[in-house]
Amino acid sequence: MEIGDLVLVSVDDHVVEPPDVFEGRLPKKYVDAAPAFEVRADGASVWRYDDKEIVNVALNAVAGRPKEEYGFEPTCMEEIRPGCYDVDARVKDMEAAGVLGSMCFPSFTGYVGRIFVQRSDRDEAAAMVRAYNDWHLDAWAGAHPERFIPLGIPMMWDPEASATEVRRLAEKGCHAVTFSSNPYAIGLPSLYSDFWDPFWAACVETATVPCMHIGSSSTDVVSSPDAPAESIYSLSPINLIEAATDVLWSPMLRKFPELRIALSEGGIGWIPYFLERVDYIFDHTQHWSGMDLGGRLPSEVFNEHVITCFIDDAVGLENRHHMNVDNMTWELDYPHADTTWPAAPETLARTLADIPDDEIDKITHGNAMRHFQYDPFATIPREQATVGALRQRVVDWDIEIRSVADLRPMAAADRS
Amino acid sequence: MEIGDLVLVSVDDHVVEPPDVFEGRLPKKYVDAAPAFEVRADGASVWRYDDKEIVNVALNAVAGRPKEEYGFEPTCMEEIRPGCYDVDARVKDMEAAGVLGSMCFPSFTGYVGRIFVQRSDRDEAAAMVRAYNDWHLDAWAGAHPERFIPLGIPMMWDPEASATEVRRLAEKGCHAVTFSSNPYAIGLPSLYSDFWDPFWAACVETATVPCMHIGSSSTDVVSSPDAPAESIYSLSPINLIEAATDVLWSPMLRKFPELRIALSEGGIGWIPYFLERVDYIFDHTQHWSGMDLGGRLPSEVFNEHVITCFIDDAVGLENRHHMNVDNMTWELDYPHADTTWPAAPETLARTLADIPDDEIDKITHGNAMRHFQYDPFATIPREQATVGALRQRVVDWDIEIRSVADLRPMAAADRS
Repeated sequence: MEIGDLVLVSVDDHVVEPPDVFEGRLPKKYVDAAPAFEVRADGASVWRYDDKEIVNVALNAVAGRPKEEYGFEPTCMEEIRPGCYDVDARVKDMEAAGVLGSMCFPSFTGYVGRIFVQRSDRDEAAAMVRAYNDWHLDAWAGAHPERFIPLGIPMMWDPEASATEVRRLAEKGCHAVTFSSNPYAIGLPSLYSDFWDPFWAACVETATVPCMHIGSSSTDVVSSPDAPAESIYSLSPINLIEAATDVLWSPMLRKFPELRIALSEGGIGWIPYFLERVDYIFDHTQHWSGMDLGGRLPSEVFNEHVITCFIDDAVGLENRHHMNVDNMTWELDYPHADTTWPAAPETLARTLADIPDDEIDKITHGNAMRHFQYDPFATIPREQATVGALRQRVVDWDIEIRSVADLRPMAAADRS
Repeated sequence: MEIGDLVLVSVDDHVVEPPDVFEGRLPKKYVDAAPAFEVRADGASVWRYDDKEIVNVALNAVAGRPKEEYGFEPTCMEEIRPGCYDVDARVKDMEAAGVLGSMCFPSFTGYVGRIFVQRSDRDEAAAMVRAYNDWHLDAWAGAHPERFIPLGIPMMWDPEASATEVRRLAEKGCHAVTFSSNPYAIGLPSLYSDFWDPFWAACVETATVPCMHIGSSSTDVVSSPDAPAESIYSLSPINLIEAATDVLWSPMLRKFPELRIALSEGGIGWIPYFLERVDYIFDHTQHWSGMDLGGRLPSEVFNEHVITCFIDDAVGLENRHHMNVDNMTWELDYPHADTTWPAAPETLARTLADIPDDEIDKITHGNAMRHFQYDPFATIPREQATVGALRQRVVDWDIEIRSVADLRPMAAADRS
């Protein structure tokens, strides 16, 4: 397949929320309690909520910056591409990378609305979650419904409330919801408990996919405090190996056999080894441990229920015969440090070279469309949805990589 | 290659220490402080040391038992194969599995002599380590030097003392020493510190390989306390992915370019993904993080310095073109639950089927012999060292899988 003929749907990108997320979306009594966007004295953009200050570090919004300027320092809106927070600009950035559709995870709230989990007033926190989801569905994904897979966040502290929210979201056309890769790590019952059953039931009832993103357990896998950034990045997929393990061995998939789970930003190259390993383990343990997988191998359970995704993963694609190609999806990870934007098609094409066209179509968009009930072809004919056609729309769009060292307002003030 | 023509050297097996380890090997003043072997009222064999009781759980010595009897309950000597603790019986068990050579990790002391790390009298603890090592070198490996790769344990709390011990061990022909996969996790400085430099220097000077076994960080990777045994097993290789990460990004290999590190029981199927991932990370971080790998890629550093091993790993062998085949070794893991004993050659042959003979020879024994300076062919001609030849020696040796439910003395007493 030619690069220009690829159709790309990304199941993992990120929105840096604009200041007006909660405006006009909250009951009057909660308006003053809403997270507030502020510009700090040093120019950094922050959110204040629940006595906490939440910054957006540069590694989380580096698309378009030179790699020398990646790092952990807090950013301001002026330093990041408008595509991070402005949905019209985002669509143009997507087109510049040939991307048709995108599912966007939240930023300042944490992937599962972590900031709301800790709030003592649970009704108020639930109202914040609903307001956030309304913003995401109406103002973000809803601004260009043919270009986004909507994604909600749950009330993690309350599976019944989450179930109600999942049903409400599904009514609005949203069939994906974030979920923690390890709820135990954020102070909630583990996947081995039955605490989550009402939530899983609502997901099955509405064909909604819980998406576990790396980092959604709020725990970094790191060996020691003096480990460098590279160590944290090297180990970041491990949270999702843990999540895959819990999903496999927990009773949840036996109780809810229609449930599908997505591992977001987990990569795929580790999966063949993992599947061989869990089958080997089960062969040794099932005789004494009492583990019941309903007569199936752990690898079969994984391949049926788990939706996988990758950014750039030659080893995983080479080994796709060990996985379920029907559950394999692709992600751009815009605007995070791992993104391949804007050269995503060229990067991807290198690893797709030996793959038949029907499998390429599944991996690049078909599986994502089916699992998340996203049908862009209803309004955009396929020939207008390709990398080539989309890029043609934005030939004048500025995607030059440029330094942002001069763009911070306070930095400018310092210079004067 | 025919199964009978394989030559097998295992770099990871385990000795269950017999009661007399410390007898006659300690200065008089420390004799009474030595770990003491006891039989508990319920029949379990235990060691007592430093106010602690250390049991050997059944999962650690199940070779020859039916899988239904695997589990966590403490064992007694009567329940485990004599090959666990009797070196002459071990050699016969090795021969029954066609295994020429074996490197045996300690059991009750912890892989890195963890029980001695916590002891307040450091001189006494060092004497215990030396006594243990003398027993291992003289009474265990030394009983059949042509059949064992000797392995010492260090004084983990004292890199200078460890360096002295490494030199002493090397004088006695031992070129392997255990080391924790994460010293920080056991209360010591991490691999990123320069604390360990005297130890690494001694390893380089004596061509000794530090061997990091899974579990040697004394931390289980587990998502929640209610996770089942299968979860712990599924995630057990992750300690070594962490160790590989630390070895890669720490300055130790730049400071000691001759150093080689072995990841014991780490498996190999995850390595191609890991190497692709660390190169991807480095491409993104080196521009801002200051990480210096001396002009090489992380994958190149790993492939040069890290000795890998596997029990049964079809995915890893299929993907060996992504790894350094010259650093790939095999293990039997006798007598632990993951072992393929006594059908190791048949199990291994399934995954070696498409591999050229020269690579099979490297993987099954050549690499282990070179890295650990083990030369069995000096006394055993190769044609007498094969699976076929070794098995021929023990045609009458009893390797039947049998229940041990009746063998515990107290259980027998209960029945009477």
